[in-house]
Amino acid sequence: MLHSAAVPHIALPDGLPGITSGFAFRPETAKPLRELAEVLLRGPSSLTSAEREMIAAFVSARNDCHFCQASHSAAAAHHLGGDYSLVDAVKRDYQTAPVSAKLKALLAIAAQVQQSGKNVRPAEVERARQEGATDVEIHDAVLIAAAFCMFNRYVDGLATMTPADAQAYDAMGRRMAREGYVRPSA
Amino acid sequence: MLHSAAVPHIALPDGLPGITSGFAFRPETAKPLRELAEVLLRGPSSLTSAEREMIAAFVSARNDCHFCQASHSAAAAHHLGGDYSLVDAVKRDYQTAPVSAKLKALLAIAAQVQQSGKNVRPAEVERARQEGATDVEIHDAVLIAAAFCMFNRYVDGLATMTPADAQAYDAMGRRMAREGYVRPSA
Repeated sequence: MLHSAAVPHIALPDGLPGITSGFAFRPETAKPLRELAEVLLRGPSSLTSAEREMIAAFVSARNDCHFCQASHSAAAAHHLGGDYSLVDAVKRDYQTAPVSAKLKALLAIAAQVQQSGKNVRPAEVERARQEGATDVEIHDAVLIAAAFCMFNRYVDGLATMTPADAQAYDAMGRRMAREGYVRPSA
Repeated sequence: MLHSAAVPHIALPDGLPGITSGFAFRPETAKPLRELAEVLLRGPSSLTSAEREMIAAFVSARNDCHFCQASHSAAAAHHLGGDYSLVDAVKRDYQTAPVSAKLKALLAIAAQVQQSGKNVRPAEVERARQEGATDVEIHDAVLIAAAFCMFNRYVDGLATMTPADAQAYDAMGRRMAREGYVRPSA
């Protein structure tokens, strides 16, 4: 069951939710977009995939992109055995959420990037470093936040069809967590 | 000669301007990012590369990302024989710039995407279609605008070093127009 406030702006393939309709419409751009998501969210990293998916869901929620925030929340939950409580807490108020001080500091950087790259201040980066974040982790937090400012605009800028059903996102998130982003079904 | 308001937030390689320092720091993410730029700005399309680089420069200017707007303005100019007048006019006021009605309509969509994907309204898409834009062209205008909301945040969110010298951008833009984005020098 697919819903959205309006029909998609262009003739996207029927029956595909959110970004997957854009991927099917334009395979040439889908390839690097899928690979970027795979490297950022599931590639080798000292941040867990759950942590990276929480950054993605957090930024998407701040950009008010329902498709991305719901699907990446589900992916984060499925990296944690199906438990949504942590990602829900992060979206509600990351500063009081029961996540590590390092992840809070990276979320603070991501919150600035969501507004503008210029908003990131040396003090926020210094705080992340003091909480144990490496330069690669700071880099990746900046790029995950920046990338979701793209993915969110892509999904909503085409007015892609958005499932209303929470179970649809749960199933999507399970696939994203297990199979990743380079398979056509993801 | 490299300048920026502050030192980069992380230990990026010395002597590389803007996004190229992020690419050198993290080759794993550089690969899909470079490929995305190549497909979007230089891949097969009914929009010229000059038109697509103008959309990129326009969005980057609205995001106040000096590195991206200056380098992609130069790339647009070098696709037009080194003439900056058109891209300068687009950045100044695209509605009165001497570009096609179709490109103006695509720039109007890009301007909305720069704020939020949700800002794109059916009327703007209809106008683009009436001016002769295809669905693929509308898709690509949305995705170019969205992608530069990422690239701009990536460049500024790391506080990469930004050349002050206009000649540095001219040389960069010439290389971007001639050699593209998948070569390490681009």
